[in-house]
Amino acid sequence: MGKGRLEAFSDGVLAIIITIMVLELKVPHGPGLADLRPLIPVILSYVLSFIYLGIYWNNHHHMLHAVQRVNGRVLWANLHLLFWLSLVPFVIGWMGENHFTVLPTALYGVVLLMAAVAYWILQQTIIARHGGESLLAKAVGRDLKGKLSPVLYVIAIFSAFFAPWVAGALYVLVAVLWLVPDRRIERALAGGKGQMP
Amino acid sequence: MGKGRLEAFSDGVLAIIITIMVLELKVPHGPGLADLRPLIPVILSYVLSFIYLGIYWNNHHHMLHAVQRVNGRVLWANLHLLFWLSLVPFVIGWMGENHFTVLPTALYGVVLLMAAVAYWILQQTIIARHGGESLLAKAVGRDLKGKLSPVLYVIAIFSAFFAPWVAGALYVLVAVLWLVPDRRIERALAGGKGQMP
Amino acid sequence: MGKGRLEAFSDGVLAIIITIMVLELKVPHGPGLADLRPLIPVILSYVLSFIYLGIYWNNHHHMLHAVQRVNGRVLWANLHLLFWLSLVPFVIGWMGENHFTVLPTALYGVVLLMAAVAYWILQQTIIARHGGESLLAKAVGRDLKGKLSPVLYVIAIFSAFFAPWVAGALYVLVAVLWLVPDRRIERALAGGKGQMP
Amino acid sequence: MGKGRLEAFSDGVLAIIITIMVLELKVPHGPGLADLRPLIPVILSYVLSFIYLGIYWNNHHHMLHAVQRVNGRVLWANLHLLFWLSLVPFVIGWMGENHFTVLPTALYGVVLLMAAVAYWILQQTIIARHGGESLLAKAVGRDLKGKLSPVLYVIAIFSAFFAPWVAGALYVLVAVLWLVPDRRIERALAGGKGQMP
Repeated sequence: MGKGRLEAFSDGVLAIIITIMVLELKVPHGPGLADLRPLIPVILSYVLSFIYLGIYWNNHHHMLHAVQRVNGRVLWANLHLLFWLSLVPFVIGWMGENHFTVLPTALYGVVLLMAAVAYWILQQTIIARHGGESLLAKAVGRDLKGKLSPVLYVIAIFSAFFAPWVAGALYVLVAVLWLVPDRRIERALAGGKGQMP
Repeated sequence: MGKGRLEAFSDGVLAIIITIMVLELKVPHGPGLADLRPLIPVILSYVLSFIYLGIYWNNHHHMLHAVQRVNGRVLWANLHLLFWLSLVPFVIGWMGENHFTVLPTALYGVVLLMAAVAYWILQQTIIARHGGESLLAKAVGRDLKGKLSPVLYVIAIFSAFFAPWVAGALYVLVAVLWLVPDRRIERALAGGKGQMP
Repeated sequence: MGKGRLEAFSDGVLAIIITIMVLELKVPHGPGLADLRPLIPVILSYVLSFIYLGIYWNNHHHMLHAVQRVNGRVLWANLHLLFWLSLVPFVIGWMGENHFTVLPTALYGVVLLMAAVAYWILQQTIIARHGGESLLAKAVGRDLKGKLSPVLYVIAIFSAFFAPWVAGALYVLVAVLWLVPDRRIERALAGGKGQMP
Repeated sequence: MGKGRLEAFSDGVLAIIITIMVLELKVPHGPGLADLRPLIPVILSYVLSFIYLGIYWNNHHHMLHAVQRVNGRVLWANLHLLFWLSLVPFVIGWMGENHFTVLPTALYGVVLLMAAVAYWILQQTIIARHGGESLLAKAVGRDLKGKLSPVLYVIAIFSAFFAPWVAGALYVLVAVLWLVPDRRIERALAGGKGQMP
């Protein structure tokens, strides 16, 4: 089975998720600067989630580039990943309504953690299909970055109950880790191209 | 006429349906765990519907793989299927607002039943175009799974009037039937690859 | 310039229009049959508009099949068509809120009329680019069906002010005219394949 | 890395942005002409933004036509452009709610300005990847049109604080500048094909 429709469908879902998030930016009723102020937390989480979804799209792009064949298992592992990412707009909306209080902030971490787990499952499913000597298996390598992210998410989830801003800072940190194309970091972390954030 | 745009359009519509369902998860106003609780029925029906749409996309993918030519009839049979699937977000929203009461639960079954009928019509239209000796006709075979699903939907619709949870359990059962790649079930049910759930 | 992205973009916009129309079906708060009743006009206009958009997608598909080259003019003529079609969900919502009263019913006709005009402009732009002897110019032929539709829309718009149901019946009639693959009608109307409804 | 998925993803996002803008046209509750009147500013800004997004899609189309290879930098420069364009529906909604008052009108200019900057960055990133002697570098040329637009946006943003209608007129002027295929203007402005508006 070809991978063309899998890519097209994933692109479609990711494009829609990244765009309907903007619907969570509820238009303020007043025309003043003060009416925009309550939106700042939603805008910040919109920017952060836009970057996260961009990283996922980017890495999904890289990962599937190394793939030749897909089967039913890969299709479902991919849908599983899309499911968790589809919850991002909902969690953003909840965080925005409640200004980074405990539970919404923790739930954001849970969704990111589950998406990372789903990405890892998808990656393993593809490697299992192509063999341990495949291009993807080699590209993934020791995957320190991929192993560090879930740990940081778990720490963020727990810290949300004591200091939500620490959780927020950790979410930003993970995004930066994946975003910055720092050669030294990339080499130190053993080339995590095509990974989940 | 090529099948490329038919696939692209169907992928687009299915990707949008699967993603706008999340808009039915209305963001709760409060920040507590108690504020999430009323959402549980909507989340459950979101998960179930995500799986149903995934099955449809998956099977649609398989079915069209065996297709070489499409004509006006196939285009319209396909639009007919997309029409019924497009009602899923509406019914989910209604079920969620009313916590699995009689009518919404029954209507969910009606939409699933009509989608299954539409899938069957699409399949027959394609087979009619390609001939009874075609690849698809052989792949479909006796299609016990495809015949069992509508029966289960009808039972679910009626049982919704007495015990909505029985209907819900039947909807889950049909999804599991299609999802589990159990070789024995698949063989017993005469290879229902590329069918509707 | 290739036509691939033009088709992909149009498919995307049409897929989204056809799907977000369902968001105009506002979920009723109550769980009973009586709560669904006020939705009947919206559901009817949803079905009709789904068919109209299906006809447009179908015919757009046929028309572009005969096209080899696109230029800036064609891109803008295409965007102009998509603009009018993008207003359909809005008009449906207004019709639904007000149960087929005068102005919403007339506005629906205006949007359909403008979409038909935009389709005709797009067709002429493509023919101008390919020459009067092109495949498309021949396929269009005398195009009686394409000339009848705008006349019926204008009659419908005016009749909306006296008897909205007459307008509604005319909208259904035009859709049926384009939908029914009646050989005799098609021959009588001089083969309107690839036209606007 | 191929450019196919970059185009597909951008088409998807642009198609969704252009279509969900219509959701900002809130359906009026009454059935009369007077109920449509408050919508006029939103409709005007919808039309203008539809044209802007059409220009961006059109130029994006041209620009990527001249591209052979994309890398991580290009993907992110492209996402950056899509981010600013994704804010257009939000700003339209705010302008519409407040009838072209000072801040919403100025914010519209800020979003257009940032999108123009993002387009310019994307263009420079692509040229950097392909070399100053590339097709794109030559097509861009002196790019007077691309340099005039940001200046006009800045003037518009400032004039919004004194006379919002001047800002509105400037937004229309920039769109017209890019839209009109006037050969003399195009030659005078040194062939700004494939630019941002």
